[in-house]
Amino acid sequence: MGRWEPDARGRLARAALELYAEAGYEQTTVADIAVRAGVTERTFFRYFADKREVLFDGSGELQRRVLEGVAAAPATLAPVDAAARGFEDAASFLEERRELSRKRAATIAANPSLQERELLKFAALGAAVAGALRARGVAGPAATLAAETGVTIFRVGFEKWIARSSGTLARCIRETLDELKTLTTAV
Amino acid sequence: MGRWEPDARGRLARAALELYAEAGYEQTTVADIAVRAGVTERTFFRYFADKREVLFDGSGELQRRVLEGVAAAPATLAPVDAAARGFEDAASFLEERRELSRKRAATIAANPSLQERELLKFAALGAAVAGALRARGVAGPAATLAAETGVTIFRVGFEKWIARSSGTLARCIRETLDELKTLTTAV
Repeated sequence: MGRWEPDARGRLARAALELYAEAGYEQTTVADIAVRAGVTERTFFRYFADKREVLFDGSGELQRRVLEGVAAAPATLAPVDAAARGFEDAASFLEERRELSRKRAATIAANPSLQERELLKFAALGAAVAGALRARGVAGPAATLAAETGVTIFRVGFEKWIARSSGTLARCIRETLDELKTLTTAV
Repeated sequence: MGRWEPDARGRLARAALELYAEAGYEQTTVADIAVRAGVTERTFFRYFADKREVLFDGSGELQRRVLEGVAAAPATLAPVDAAARGFEDAASFLEERRELSRKRAATIAANPSLQERELLKFAALGAAVAGALRARGVAGPAATLAAETGVTIFRVGFEKWIARSSGTLARCIRETLDELKTLTTAV
């Protein structure tokens, strides 16, 4: 069936996010998503375990890119800057999906069970970034501190990005890193 | 029955944490906890909804103290410093419970379902601290950034504290705040 369904995964993801935004996450069924995407339910389950996983499908790829970015950051960068650089490098992965990212964020904000899953995702991402910083020679607690701060910078930068109508995510992350530096400097 | 059970709540909490450390969280029943504390199961349920809530009993009090600390911090403090000050002020609440805190942390580290609950607790705490910073005049995204950074400083400082045999939690939080400042400065 695959050859009659070009980009079925992408169409399913877009259909799901549209329906979650229009009808609500709880109210949307896999059958609804398949109909909207023009595929069978069976095709849905070829790509996603359930309707929740549509929202977390990109997590692995995002993490892979962040870790690559941290590993590739110049050795002279301070640990927090190296963590932020990882997120900045990974931003291109989300850059073309502002509208979908906005719908995804709204869906998660409206559903506590999805928020838990999102928190777990970021906790895993923070632990992975801490590992990447340790591989750069940053000591244990400092690596955790810098990695978690990097995750916070990404999350706040991401919120700014989806709230704006223009400007890149990478720029929002850089701005947020600079802002953090001013927020630790006494008035 | 209350007058024959002085500090039943405290004894139940200590008994629960001992048993979670000795026998494992999943393996421990409310009946086991009640026996160890020398009270009835009925008494247990007078204080706690279930065995999980024993671990989160102090969350509300911790949050109350953190918010008081943020509100009372000198107006000249930078937002991240004000957030960290809130946690530092609240540290006395945990200061006498290093051993119980260590058992609690080990129990949570060993049980993914408890980690989710812990993440939710910190997410709620971060949102509350952001609110307290906004009340000090810190703008929206900056308040979230400073508050989440404060939570990270507290969590990393807390890990340092329970890993050590001496020194106060307040000192560990201050050290971690100072460390963050060096981690944002290029080598």
